[in-house]
Amino acid sequence: MFNFKNDYSEGCHPRILDALTRTNLEQTVGYGLDEHCANAANLIKKAVGCETAHVHFLVGGTQTNMTAISAFLRPHHCVLAAATGHVNVHETGAIEATGHKVVTRPTPDGKLTAALIQDMVDEHTDEHMVKPGLVYISQSTELGTVYTKGELESIHACCQKNGLLLYIDGARLACALTSDVCDVTLTDLPNLCDAFYIGGTKNGMLFGEALVIVNDTLKEEFRFFIKQRGGMLAKGRLLGIQFEEQFRDSLYLELGRHANAMAQRLQVGLEAKGYPLLQRSPTNLVFPILTPEQYECFSSIALFELWSTLPDDRKVIRLVTSWATKQEAVDSFLSQL
Amino acid sequence: MFNFKNDYSEGCHPRILDALTRTNLEQTVGYGLDEHCANAANLIKKAVGCETAHVHFLVGGTQTNMTAISAFLRPHHCVLAAATGHVNVHETGAIEATGHKVVTRPTPDGKLTAALIQDMVDEHTDEHMVKPGLVYISQSTELGTVYTKGELESIHACCQKNGLLLYIDGARLACALTSDVCDVTLTDLPNLCDAFYIGGTKNGMLFGEALVIVNDTLKEEFRFFIKQRGGMLAKGRLLGIQFEEQFRDSLYLELGRHANAMAQRLQVGLEAKGYPLLQRSPTNLVFPILTPEQYECFSSIALFELWSTLPDDRKVIRLVTSWATKQEAVDSFLSQL
Amino acid sequence: MFNFKNDYSEGCHPRILDALTRTNLEQTVGYGLDEHCANAANLIKKAVGCETAHVHFLVGGTQTNMTAISAFLRPHHCVLAAATGHVNVHETGAIEATGHKVVTRPTPDGKLTAALIQDMVDEHTDEHMVKPGLVYISQSTELGTVYTKGELESIHACCQKNGLLLYIDGARLACALTSDVCDVTLTDLPNLCDAFYIGGTKNGMLFGEALVIVNDTLKEEFRFFIKQRGGMLAKGRLLGIQFEEQFRDSLYLELGRHANAMAQRLQVGLEAKGYPLLQRSPTNLVFPILTPEQYECFSSIALFELWSTLPDDRKVIRLVTSWATKQEAVDSFLSQL
Amino acid sequence: MFNFKNDYSEGCHPRILDALTRTNLEQTVGYGLDEHCANAANLIKKAVGCETAHVHFLVGGTQTNMTAISAFLRPHHCVLAAATGHVNVHETGAIEATGHKVVTRPTPDGKLTAALIQDMVDEHTDEHMVKPGLVYISQSTELGTVYTKGELESIHACCQKNGLLLYIDGARLACALTSDVCDVTLTDLPNLCDAFYIGGTKNGMLFGEALVIVNDTLKEEFRFFIKQRGGMLAKGRLLGIQFEEQFRDSLYLELGRHANAMAQRLQVGLEAKGYPLLQRSPTNLVFPILTPEQYECFSSIALFELWSTLPDDRKVIRLVTSWATKQEAVDSFLSQL
Repeated sequence: MFNFKNDYSEGCHPRILDALTRTNLEQTVGYGLDEHCANAANLIKKAVGCETAHVHFLVGGTQTNMTAISAFLRPHHCVLAAATGHVNVHETGAIEATGHKVVTRPTPDGKLTAALIQDMVDEHTDEHMVKPGLVYISQSTELGTVYTKGELESIHACCQKNGLLLYIDGARLACALTSDVCDVTLTDLPNLCDAFYIGGTKNGMLFGEALVIVNDTLKEEFRFFIKQRGGMLAKGRLLGIQFEEQFRDSLYLELGRHANAMAQRLQVGLEAKGYPLLQRSPTNLVFPILTPEQYECFSSIALFELWSTLPDDRKVIRLVTSWATKQEAVDSFLSQL
Repeated sequence: MFNFKNDYSEGCHPRILDALTRTNLEQTVGYGLDEHCANAANLIKKAVGCETAHVHFLVGGTQTNMTAISAFLRPHHCVLAAATGHVNVHETGAIEATGHKVVTRPTPDGKLTAALIQDMVDEHTDEHMVKPGLVYISQSTELGTVYTKGELESIHACCQKNGLLLYIDGARLACALTSDVCDVTLTDLPNLCDAFYIGGTKNGMLFGEALVIVNDTLKEEFRFFIKQRGGMLAKGRLLGIQFEEQFRDSLYLELGRHANAMAQRLQVGLEAKGYPLLQRSPTNLVFPILTPEQYECFSSIALFELWSTLPDDRKVIRLVTSWATKQEAVDSFLSQL
Repeated sequence: MFNFKNDYSEGCHPRILDALTRTNLEQTVGYGLDEHCANAANLIKKAVGCETAHVHFLVGGTQTNMTAISAFLRPHHCVLAAATGHVNVHETGAIEATGHKVVTRPTPDGKLTAALIQDMVDEHTDEHMVKPGLVYISQSTELGTVYTKGELESIHACCQKNGLLLYIDGARLACALTSDVCDVTLTDLPNLCDAFYIGGTKNGMLFGEALVIVNDTLKEEFRFFIKQRGGMLAKGRLLGIQFEEQFRDSLYLELGRHANAMAQRLQVGLEAKGYPLLQRSPTNLVFPILTPEQYECFSSIALFELWSTLPDDRKVIRLVTSWATKQEAVDSFLSQL
Repeated sequence: MFNFKNDYSEGCHPRILDALTRTNLEQTVGYGLDEHCANAANLIKKAVGCETAHVHFLVGGTQTNMTAISAFLRPHHCVLAAATGHVNVHETGAIEATGHKVVTRPTPDGKLTAALIQDMVDEHTDEHMVKPGLVYISQSTELGTVYTKGELESIHACCQKNGLLLYIDGARLACALTSDVCDVTLTDLPNLCDAFYIGGTKNGMLFGEALVIVNDTLKEEFRFFIKQRGGMLAKGRLLGIQFEEQFRDSLYLELGRHANAMAQRLQVGLEAKGYPLLQRSPTNLVFPILTPEQYECFSSIALFELWSTLPDDRKVIRLVTSWATKQEAVDSFLSQL
C-alpha cells in the first residue's frame, strides 16, 4: 500500500533521531530553558536574519496558532482568514475556545489578498461587531499554493494601514520556501509579518514548531501563555535538539525541497496519464480529480485523503509527499495506475 | 554538580528510546488512531483492570488536567483542590483560562480529606456562588505524600454523596503506587475515581500522560476536546509506542520503585547527618530544612529547588530523584555534605 | 425629524410605566425571586401553553443569547446560524467570547432552512472540526421576514434528526406572531423548539427578555449561568412587573400588531410613490431602495439606518416602526417625500 | 415584617422615578449615545474632578466588574482580592469565566493592605504561575468597613511599584464616602486608582453603575467590551437619566448619608440593648451577634441575611439599611427586641 495520506506518517529524519539518541542522558533544566533550545533559537534567528526576534518552541500547529493568536489579541478582536484556513476549519474551534471570532472569505486558491482583507475590515464598522485584530495566512496554504513576496508585501501593507497584525502559519513553510514559484526566503519573513512559525512536525521532526515573534509589542511575557495553554513541554530540550539539527546546516530546507520534488514528479506523472488537477500545485500537495472508477482504483493501492466531491460525482483527492517519500514509491505508484 | 532538581532532567529510559528508534520509519495514520496507541490503550486497560475505560494519550500534565477538567464540567462548576494542588499553583491559571474557578483549602501535607471537601461544598449555597463540580487530587501529592486506599475511599464516597466528580492527577503515580506506605494498586483506581491519568513524563518517557476515563458519562466525544485544547499530537503513535513499552511488562512501576528507593536512601542519609525534614516523604521528593550556611553548601554541589523560607530564615529545599538517579550519585552527594 | 431608526427609541408603554410607578415602594426580595416574577412567569407559561417550561427574565437580547447558548452547549459545540443572524454579526462576538464558533450560511432572506442546516452538519465530519450543537434562528429575522409553522416544523425535525438543539431569538417575536403571513402562535412555540425568548425591549418595555426553556435537559441550575454572565438584575422584580403587565391581557401582541400596521402603511405608501423594496416585509422593518438623491432627501427629514449600498450606488435603508409610532407620523413622513 | 435584608428591596428614589416618567416618550438614539448619558457623564466627571476620565454606564455590579476587569487584563493576569471580595465569593465565578484567576488573602475586616498585596505579588515568581495584574478592592467593603485616604494611597503606591492596576468596586460608594470615619472624597478617587465604579443599584436607582476609567491606557475601545459581555442596554438613556438626577445636585451622597444614619441608629440601639457586634460598622451594614433564641426572635419580626454561625452556635446576622429605610422603622424594630 502506498501512503500519500499526509506528511507526518513516519517518525523523524534519521539525523534528528541520532541527535535525540546522542543527547538522551544529558541532564538539562526543563521547560525550554536549556542550552539546546538557546542554541536552536540562535540558529533560527541567524537563519531568518533577525537577531531581535524572540523564538519559542511548541509541540504542534494548533497549539502554536491558539497560543500565539490568543496572546496577541484583546478580547474584542477577531481573526481574518481564508475560509479554508486551518484555524477556521481544522482546529475544532480552538481559536474561538480562547474567545475570538474567525471572520472569513471564500477564496479559489486558499490565499487571502489585500482586497479581501480590506473588504472584511470595511464591513466591521462599530462596537456592535468584533474588531479585526489579526490576519492569519498559511504559507504554503492548505491547497498547496504559495504567496509570492509581492503578495505578502501587499498584504502586509494592508495590515499596517488598518492596524492589523499579520501572522503566518508555517506548518509547511519548508515546502513553500523551496517551491519553484516562490521568491520568498527565510530572511524575508521578519520584514513581512509580525510573527510566524517554522513548522517541524510536517518536515521531518517527531514534533515541534518554532514560533518567531518579530513585533516587539508581542514579545513580552510570552512564556506565560505557552504554559497557560498547556504547551510548555517539561523536557523542552527535545524541541531544541530537533531544531538545532534542522538549522545547523540546510537540512530544514532540503527536506522541504525533497517533498516538493516528489510531489512534482507525481503531479507531472498524473498529468501525463491524463488526470486533470484541481489546480497545479507548486508544493507537496497534489489534487487530482478522479472518476468514481479511478477513485476506486487509487483507493485499492494507496492511502490518501478525499478532498471533495464535485457536482458531477468526480472526486478530488489530496496526495501528500514528504521528506520520507521515496522516488521509487512515486514511480511504482504511477506505473500501477 | 549533582542534579536533584526534578524528575525530568534526562531524555527517556533506554528501552523507550529503543522502541522509538525501532519503529521510526513505520508508516502509521496520525492523531493517535494507529495500532501502537490501540495496543498501549489495551495494555493499560488490562493493567488497571477495567476493560470499559477509555484511554487517551496527551503530551503533558497541564494539558491533560486542563483538557479533561474543562471537558468534564459545565460553565458554572468549580474545582475543589488542596491549596498546594498543581492546578491551583503551577499551571498559570490554565483551569481558569477555560472558565472554571479553583476553590482551595490549605492543608499541612498536600492532601485533601472528605471533611475538607464537605466544608467547601457546604460553603457554596446558591447561584451567587460557583457550584462545586469536581475534586482534584494528586497521587502522589506535590509534597510527596500519598493517599491510602481508605483515604481515597472516604474521599470518593464524599464525592458521590455530593454529586462531585473525582479526578486524580497521576503525574507521579508510579512513585505513589510503589511507595512503602501506599496500599493502592493500579486496579484499585477505576473503582476509586471518575478519571485519572498515568504520568509518563516524570517516569522515564520523553513525554506523555495516559488519561483513563472510567465514568461513562465523561467518555463521549472526548477527542474533540483534545484537539480543541491543542493536545492532539500529529504523530500520536509516539505516545502509544512509549506507553506500550512501559506496560508490556512492569517497567512503569519499576521506574517508580527505583526513584523511591533513591529518595529513601537520600532521606535516611540526610537524617543520619542530622538534617531535619519538613516531613518524612514516602516517595521521590525529599524536603530537608537547611540553615543558611547549609543551604549555601548544598547549592555549591547540587541543583535543586528552593521550596520555602521559614520565619527563622532556614530554607526548605526539595530534592527529587528519578528513574535515572544513580545510587553512586546519592552516596557521593551524601558523603560531600 | 421623523424617527424610524429602531424600535427602542422611547422609554416604555404608559401602562408599563404605570405598573412600575404603582409598585415602586413595595419591598421585595431581589434577583427575580419575588412574586411579580413568579406571577409573570406563570402568565407566560399559560400564554405559551406549557406549564412545565422554565421562564427566566434577563435584561437584553445579547445577554440572553449569550447566557442561554453558552449554558446549553458543551465546549466543542458550534452554533449554526444564517449569516445575517444577530449572534453572528451584531453581538461583538459574544458567543465566541464564551468559547463557541458560529458557523453560517448566506441566505437571501435571513432565514435558515432544513437543507442549509443539513449541509452544515454534513460538512462537520470528525473531531478536527467543531461539532454542530445548536441551531439559532430569529423570529422575525433581522430582515423582517418570518418563519411559517411549516418551516419551523421542518427545521425542528432536521434538528432532532441530527441531535441539534433549536433556539429561537424572539427579540421581535410580537411582530412575527402578529404578522399577516405568520401562522405560528405563542402556544406553538414550545412544540417547535428547545428554548426561545420573548422580546420585551423592542416591544414597549424599558428592557427585558423572557427566556422560555422547554427542553427538560436544559433547565437545571440555569440561574447560575444568569449570575455568572452578569445578567442577574438585583431588582429583578422590574422585569417581572413589566412582563406581568404585558401578559395579564393581550398587550404584548397588541403592541406588535400596531408596529406591523404602521410598517405596512409605510411600505404601501412607499411603493405607491414608486420606491422599490429590497423585499416586501411582513413585519415592522421596511427596506426601501433609494437613489443617492432620494437618500439625501430622506436623511434630511428622518432618522434611519443605512442597510447597504448596492453596486449601482443605490442605498438600501431600514425603516423601523414600533408600538410608539403614530399613524400621523407615517402619513406626514410619506407626504413630505 | 421589618426588612433589613438588603439595600435594593424597593424600586427607586421618587426623584429618579419622576425623571424617568418625565422623559419617557422622548426619542433618543440607543446604546448610551444619547444626550442624557452625555450629560450624566459630564456631571460625574465634574463631581470626581477629572475631565479626562471616560465614564460608561452599565446595569449591575457583577456585569461591571466582569466587563472592566476582563477588558483591562491580558490572559495570563490574575486579580488580587480580599477573600471576602465580591468578585471572589458572590459572582458565580464571573471573573474566572472570562479566563482570570482570583488570588486572595483572608482578612479580618474585608480590607486588603499594601503588605498583603506585596505578599501575593512576591509569591508569584515565574511563568508557571499566573501574573498579578490588578488589585480589586471594595469601598465600602462587603463587611461595611471603609478604606481611609491614607490606606488607599498606600495600596495605590504598592500597585504602582508592582505594575498592578487598582480597581475599586463602588457598589456602596455613597455609603463609604459619607461615613464618619472616611476622609476620602469623590475628587480623591481619580488620583487613587485606575478605574472605579459609582454604584447606583444599591443607592436609590432602579439599576445602574457608572464606571469611571481614569488610566488612559484602559480607555480605548471600551464600548466593544460592554457589548461583548452583554452589558450594552438598548435604551441606554435609562442609565443616563438616573445618573443625571443623582449628580445634578448632591442626591447621590445624600442617599448614602441617610442609609448610614439609619444604620448607626440601629447599631447604637442594638449595642444599648446589649447585643455584641462582629465589629462596629461605619456604614450601612450592621453585624450583631445573636444567641439562637435571639436569632429566632429577630427572624420572627424582620428579614435579614444570616452571615455566619460561630463555633459556639451563636449567629452573626447582617442588617442593611438604605436610602428608603425610615427612622420610625428602625425605632419600632428596636423597641420590639
